Amino acid sequence: MTAETTTAYTAIVYAVADRIATVSLNRPEARNGYTLTMAHELEHAFLAADADPTVQVVVFTCVGKDFSVGADLSGGGFDVSGTDPDADWQEPAGRCSKTIYGMNKPVIAALRGVSVGGGMTITLSCDFRLASTDSRFSFPFSRRGIFPEGASVWYLPRLVGISKATDWMLTGRLFGASEALDAGLVTSVHEPEAVLGAAYELARDIIANTSEVSTAVIKQMLNRLSGLDSPIPVHAIDSRLIAGLSRHSDAVEGVKSFLEKRPPAFPMTVPGDLPQLLPWIETDQTP
Amino acid sequence: MTAETTTAYTAIVYAVADRIATVSLNRPEARNGYTLTMAHELEHAFLAADADPTVQVVVFTCVGKDFSVGADLSGGGFDVSGTDPDADWQEPAGRCSKTIYGMNKPVIAALRGVSVGGGMTITLSCDFRLASTDSRFSFPFSRRGIFPEGASVWYLPRLVGISKATDWMLTGRLFGASEALDAGLVTSVHEPEAVLGAAYELARDIIANTSEVSTAVIKQMLNRLSGLDSPIPVHAIDSRLIAGLSRHSDAVEGVKSFLEKRPPAFPMTVPGDLPQLLPWIETDQTP
Amino acid sequence: MTAETTTAYTAIVYAVADRIATVSLNRPEARNGYTLTMAHELEHAFLAADADPTVQVVVFTCVGKDFSVGADLSGGGFDVSGTDPDADWQEPAGRCSKTIYGMNKPVIAALRGVSVGGGMTITLSCDFRLASTDSRFSFPFSRRGIFPEGASVWYLPRLVGISKATDWMLTGRLFGASEALDAGLVTSVHEPEAVLGAAYELARDIIANTSEVSTAVIKQMLNRLSGLDSPIPVHAIDSRLIAGLSRHSDAVEGVKSFLEKRPPAFPMTVPGDLPQLLPWIETDQTP
Repeated sequence: MTAETTTAYTAIVYAVADRIATVSLNRPEARNGYTLTMAHELEHAFLAADADPTVQVVVFTCVGKDFSVGADLSGGGFDVSGTDPDADWQEPAGRCSKTIYGMNKPVIAALRGVSVGGGMTITLSCDFRLASTDSRFSFPFSRRGIFPEGASVWYLPRLVGISKATDWMLTGRLFGASEALDAGLVTSVHEPEAVLGAAYELARDIIANTSEVSTAVIKQMLNRLSGLDSPIPVHAIDSRLIAGLSRHSDAVEGVKSFLEKRPPAFPMTVPGDLPQLLPWIETDQTP
Repeated sequence: MTAETTTAYTAIVYAVADRIATVSLNRPEARNGYTLTMAHELEHAFLAADADPTVQVVVFTCVGKDFSVGADLSGGGFDVSGTDPDADWQEPAGRCSKTIYGMNKPVIAALRGVSVGGGMTITLSCDFRLASTDSRFSFPFSRRGIFPEGASVWYLPRLVGISKATDWMLTGRLFGASEALDAGLVTSVHEPEAVLGAAYELARDIIANTSEVSTAVIKQMLNRLSGLDSPIPVHAIDSRLIAGLSRHSDAVEGVKSFLEKRPPAFPMTVPGDLPQLLPWIETDQTP
Repeated sequence: MTAETTTAYTAIVYAVADRIATVSLNRPEARNGYTLTMAHELEHAFLAADADPTVQVVVFTCVGKDFSVGADLSGGGFDVSGTDPDADWQEPAGRCSKTIYGMNKPVIAALRGVSVGGGMTITLSCDFRLASTDSRFSFPFSRRGIFPEGASVWYLPRLVGISKATDWMLTGRLFGASEALDAGLVTSVHEPEAVLGAAYELARDIIANTSEVSTAVIKQMLNRLSGLDSPIPVHAIDSRLIAGLSRHSDAVEGVKSFLEKRPPAFPMTVPGDLPQLLPWIETDQTP
């Protein structure tokens, strides 16, 4: 595929082709050590992908053999420049994970080599994480005398359960792809050179078969409603969405193509055709 | 066993025998496609079972080889007749899952063949789901251009974790009994002709060994308290329930039968003997 | 190691050595049946360990071959003496689980033989549970005509998922170490005589490699923030903690020792050096 590449970024690469945006960490010389510039650029790129009508799915990966070693320590410590305790300073890993959390489009992380600390927490709000056989993970905050970032104390227990999250976070130990797969941190494991291809294959399957609007609503509902303490308000939102189906052209095409046993051609697009009744529209999305 | 069958239903069968109510989807000619009539009748039948003092456990199953193909599309689309966006219209799958959620009695689903879409979300609030080797599941909302129903974005992540729920719901792909068992969507897998028998065996074990009042309270506490963000209010409710044990005849019989190594004969019944201090009594139960 | 043993307790043993406090149930003649005295002493011992600057990790285990058979029934029933429905009486198992939940220091349970009912719920807020090959577990509340204790309806679904928690709690059935491990109730399984040694090995690893302050903050964040319905407030807390890292000497040592490839020597201690901005400081900690 021929990708249109945006060259204004320095710490990442952004390219769009075949309705897939690819966001790649691009500091291979530093094993993709996470920097403030990277945080700025990731936030910008993910928002751009979410707003771009030619993009339907986003793949998040890396240049080089390691996804990211975490916070760049080449300055001898953590770069907290620009912090102002009185202002609403946002820590850099969370700026990425929060942006992905708020997106309407699915994000698939293709991870290989080392993904540790902030270099892993930035992926925890992705919808899919694919690993490679050489993947090594850790959440080494307790071993560095620091604190969890990227809202990882919230995402990780939801992904792997509180026992495993506690084990990984209190010991800070290194673990491999097999343990990550068993725990549910990643959905599949591939050869290092094959993991990006598997991510694209999954992206193409979603593009070929699913409605953009349905996918956006499902992703947002899972993110925002599954943590409520009761299903009753969820049932109310379901009911309002489903009451509107008779005026919803994707539903008409979905049923028609299914009954005619042919691939669907959904007419509706994101974000323009999102149902306006979703309670989180225009709330915490602003970065 | 000789079952007393209620014949007023047209889309389901309802029968009671040996303290077990059996609720069966009964449109085998349409592979149990889900209809508004079915929703009405299921709501009525589950409420009847919960109110019937001769019923202790409910089994939810089907006539025919498939549990349900989901929303009946024989009219060429989703039947949203009776919807009024201004009123409190409730989507049909959620009417079933919400009713089961509010019940005091355990519900065991015995699934075989196809259980997809609304034909699966109606079972997600059951206390047990048993599958058969020929079970096939999917949550194909994104492939039909529609939205999740039955409050499934709330139930499914609680049952199988957010990663697996996201995978199944965003791709809409079909999966089998083995993947469902590994993920925790079902508790066991049986031969197609044996799954209903396994459900009855589990029902009989619960009837023979457990207190109706304890079972109702435990089920409701798990449903309503496990999603709170802190254990402190749960500890407070535990304390009030346990402070009342000296006046609780099931607890006396439970300990006595245990010490005498004989089966228990619990005297208390549901709903009459439920502790009145439970905070959800007389709140969202009304359908 | 030479342990200093506190002898004022009658139902437990408390000893400190090598920065590890060991709390042991000590009624082996009654298979460690749980009593009000035990609840009093456990609450006191865990609070003492949390306040003791010479303690960094706590191991929770037993004298004898069984961790605990649950509530002591030698009086012919449950001892609810001292209950006053009008006052804030706290049920005994929850007094233990709530105290551990509020601690700043990691607690590792080393379980062997029987751990049932209140004899298991008191461990559900521990950070790690290690089992032995002869472990047998159950939550037999429904079989005794009583109610769940120790806020177990909150902890258990978080540890093993709502399906497994429902299965175990509604049937009350006995299960072994293998099922507990698969479900995530325990993190590892050892020979009966080796489980305590494995707990100490884990404790020594945490002591050698991790910051007390980081560990305390991570444990509390996991306990108190992972159940929120949104990551946004978690991101805000992360940001405030990380904005303070330039003044945080453990972070300086953590990075320095990492870059110098030597073991860390973290200078900060708990509770004196805990970040004061944590929102739960001075709230529900008082027992």
